[in-house]
Formats: sequence, structure tokens, C-alpha cells
Amino acid sequence: MDAIDCLMTRRSIKSYTDRMVDDETLWKILDAGTMAPTAKNLQSPVILCVKNKKIRDKMSSLNAKVLGTESDPFYGAPIVLVVLADRNNPNHVYDGSLVMGNLLTAAHALGVSACWINRAKEVFDSEEGKKLLKDLGVDGDLEGIGNCVLGYSDKDIPKAKPRKPDYIMLVE
Amino acid sequence: MDAIDCLMTRRSIKSYTDRMVDDETLWKILDAGTMAPTAKNLQSPVILCVKNKKIRDKMSSLNAKVLGTESDPFYGAPIVLVVLADRNNPNHVYDGSLVMGNLLTAAHALGVSACWINRAKEVFDSEEGKKLLKDLGVDGDLEGIGNCVLGYSDKDIPKAKPRKPDYIMLVE
Repeated sequence: MDAIDCLMTRRSIKSYTDRMVDDETLWKILDAGTMAPTAKNLQSPVILCVKNKKIRDKMSSLNAKVLGTESDPFYGAPIVLVVLADRNNPNHVYDGSLVMGNLLTAAHALGVSACWINRAKEVFDSEEGKKLLKDLGVDGDLEGIGNCVLGYSDKDIPKAKPRKPDYIMLVE
Repeated sequence: MDAIDCLMTRRSIKSYTDRMVDDETLWKILDAGTMAPTAKNLQSPVILCVKNKKIRDKMSSLNAKVLGTESDPFYGAPIVLVVLADRNNPNHVYDGSLVMGNLLTAAHALGVSACWINRAKEVFDSEEGKKLLKDLGVDGDLEGIGNCVLGYSDKDIPKAKPRKPDYIMLVE
């Protein structure tokens, strides 16, 4: 897909079937994530690629708890890419967000539906979230930046909402 | 350019000629910036597109002051896109960073060199930076997220640095 078309037509998809993303496609998305720029190329983020259903469901329930709901905040998507970043790096939120952006763009380029799901910070700042990371062998003083859910939708792609009129200001 | 190729070959360019980006190309980049997802579609960011040389040089000097240097932190690039975001929105740093990501990706897709230049926060939190925004008619309680410089380089494109081995962790 053309890169500009890709940026202009990407949408946040909020309904998924349980169809898995194949490994070749998934790795292209993950590799594109790692190519996001990071401040001074310090590569403060990590990407936790969760395909295991039990762990995916655990992360969903921790996320739902923060949100105060019992429904699945991941909209049924079978894969969750959690981006976390070293909180000792002052630019870690910028860095991690750019990785999230690359993951979202790459997914759409490859025909995979995706959405940024929030509350990664609250989940992995919680005792349960920290324990989960430890159990998974993830080390470091990491802050959750975002969850990028991946999968396929059987719903129509939503139209883009209009952009606000003063989004861009020219200083010529 | 293919979207995946674009994400994989984008580099942070740190040397620019004074060649301007034409308006048609510039607007494609800006529009792609506005299409980044934002939390709850609240569109907390704004993009200040600075082509005016006097204002560009003023922003450069404010940025240099934070950095403690007298050289141009914008590497001679003729255009600076400043992304700022409403600091009353708890997700404004994520939102603004995703706009920055789209701008960087779109620029590369169109053959325009770009780089995230930091210290937008410090510059626009300073009294001088706040006054500059006010003089430009930019309202709101805005936090600087990043400066995306744009232009053309006459140097070779740098090779990508290797990614750290533990960037991606699989939970299968």
C-alpha cells in the first residue's frame, strides 16, 4: 500500500474476529515498530508480543479493572502488542508512542486491523501488572505506553471523523 | 513509496540545504499529520507550520538556549513543524507524539528529509516561548511535544543503527 494512502486511510478498529495474524505478517509489523526513531537512538522501548490466550486474557482483565468494566477492552482482538519503555529515559513516552505509531501504520499497510488501547501505564504500574511482567521474564524499570491490538474485523471500516478546523496553523 | 518500505528506510536527517518544500508536498505531510489517531478522537494536538525565516530562526535560538549551544539545533532545515498539545488532556503527549510520527513518515514517503528535534516542551514552557505563541495568535494551554524539521539534504542518508536484541519479546 502507498505510504500516504496508508496514513490517510488507517482507522482505529474496535471489533475483531478471532482470526490470527500469520507470523510472517506479524514480524513485518514488529520490525517496523522497532524502526521508529528514538531520542539519541537509545531505543528505550520494548515490544511485548502477546499471542498466548491466557496471558492476553489476563492483560485484558487488568485493563478492564482500570477502566471499571467487565467487558474486553481489547475488543476481542487475538493479539496484543504491549509497548513499554524505560522510565529512566526522559524521552521514553515520546519514544514508545512513536513505536506505537509505526505498529499501527504497518498493520494497516498489511491489511491487519489495529487500535491503540490505553491504560498500559496503569496496568503495569499496578502490583498485579508488575508481577505479570516479572513472571514473563521482562526486566527493567518499564512504564506501559500503549497496547496495540491486532487482528481482523468483519465490520465495515468506520469513516474518519472530521479534523478540527484549527489543527494546522501556518506561519508564512 | 510502499508503506512498509517507508517505515523501514526512514532516517533522522541532520543536515539540510535551504531548498524549500513546495506547498503541495507540504500540505500532504500536514494532512497526514492530522490523521494520526488521538485518544477518544479529541484531537488534542495542533501543528504550527513555520516557513517564516525570522520566526524559524527565533525558535531555533530559543531551542539552542535550552540546549546550551549557539549552533542551529534545526540543522539548517528551512521548515519547522511544531507539534503542541492541550496539556489538560491526559493523553496529550501520546497524541502529539503520534502526530509527529505521521509527519516523519509522510515526509519520507514524499522524498522530504525530516528529523524530530527535541526541547519543544522547554521552549514553549519558557516565558519567551509563551510570548512567541501569543504573538503568533496561538491560544490554549499548550505543551510543546516536538519539532519536526523538514527540507532536503545533500549528504548521504545515514545507515540505520542496529536494533537492540531484546527489543521484541514473544509471549506465545
